[in-house]
Amino acid sequence: MPLEGNKAQLYLDDLAVGQEYLSGEHPLDAGQIIAFAREFDPQPFHTDPEAAKETFFQGLAASGWHTMAITMKLLVASIPLAQGVIGAGGSVSWPRPTRPGDVLRVKSTILGITPSRSRPERASVETRSLTLNQADEVLQDFTARLVVFKKRS
Amino acid sequence: MPLEGNKAQLYLDDLAVGQEYLSGEHPLDAGQIIAFAREFDPQPFHTDPEAAKETFFQGLAASGWHTMAITMKLLVASIPLAQGVIGAGGSVSWPRPTRPGDVLRVKSTILGITPSRSRPERASVETRSLTLNQADEVLQDFTARLVVFKKRS
Repeated sequence: MPLEGNKAQLYLDDLAVGQEYLSGEHPLDAGQIIAFAREFDPQPFHTDPEAAKETFFQGLAASGWHTMAITMKLLVASIPLAQGVIGAGGSVSWPRPTRPGDVLRVKSTILGITPSRSRPERASVETRSLTLNQADEVLQDFTARLVVFKKRS
Repeated sequence: MPLEGNKAQLYLDDLAVGQEYLSGEHPLDAGQIIAFAREFDPQPFHTDPEAAKETFFQGLAASGWHTMAITMKLLVASIPLAQGVIGAGGSVSWPRPTRPGDVLRVKSTILGITPSRSRPERASVETRSLTLNQADEVLQDFTARLVVFKKRS
């Protein structure tokens, strides 16, 4: 039951384990990769297409945190939580590099919902978000713990 | 044995469990917080100081991924790995929000070194990086798995 482009404002009451959310797309090019990396991850494999050929990545690759930042942009637009997408933490891995020309999109699934013991109006919601390219290859696998609130009655 | 401003090029052979690396500082202001969030995490608590007062954060807070991106910039400058700081993945939590006026710095410790079974020239190095503000409060707790290489003989 994927929900695409859903503009509804979601509360904890609306969520259930197994729900899926599909994001829109973000086309990535070398200019974006280099601009982000110059500011936040200035290493040759992220900033210099020629020098990158001689590195572990064998060509220009996006900073993992750039892939994550784009993922967050796509998540905010695709999981319309009424109080916002608020992360307490999470785990990430990058099975393969993000490359110039990749078109990113994110597929998220609700894995678990754990009510807060001390604050009955909120819960910790565990989500898994896979960031895919146009060939359906997994670029990033991100499991997050979100803070989600009940609707005030 | 913290190493500050070390410019040496480090190989796997140079690393040991318990080694610490201290970064330089990054002063953060509201303008940087809003610019990053408009591009990657456009939610009122990250982009609008007035609207942020009525949210979970009770005032403007940086996107967690902005805190992470600045952390990466500080890490790249403070852990001078010869082949670069290459992350395979990791886990993050944000014990408290990053605020305008915070001066960020990162303290990293090597937690473990696991040689690769299939590729004897490399290892997975587990690091823990705490991002602190000027009051020594922990803003981010990040454990990473880095790919590190032996020096070619």
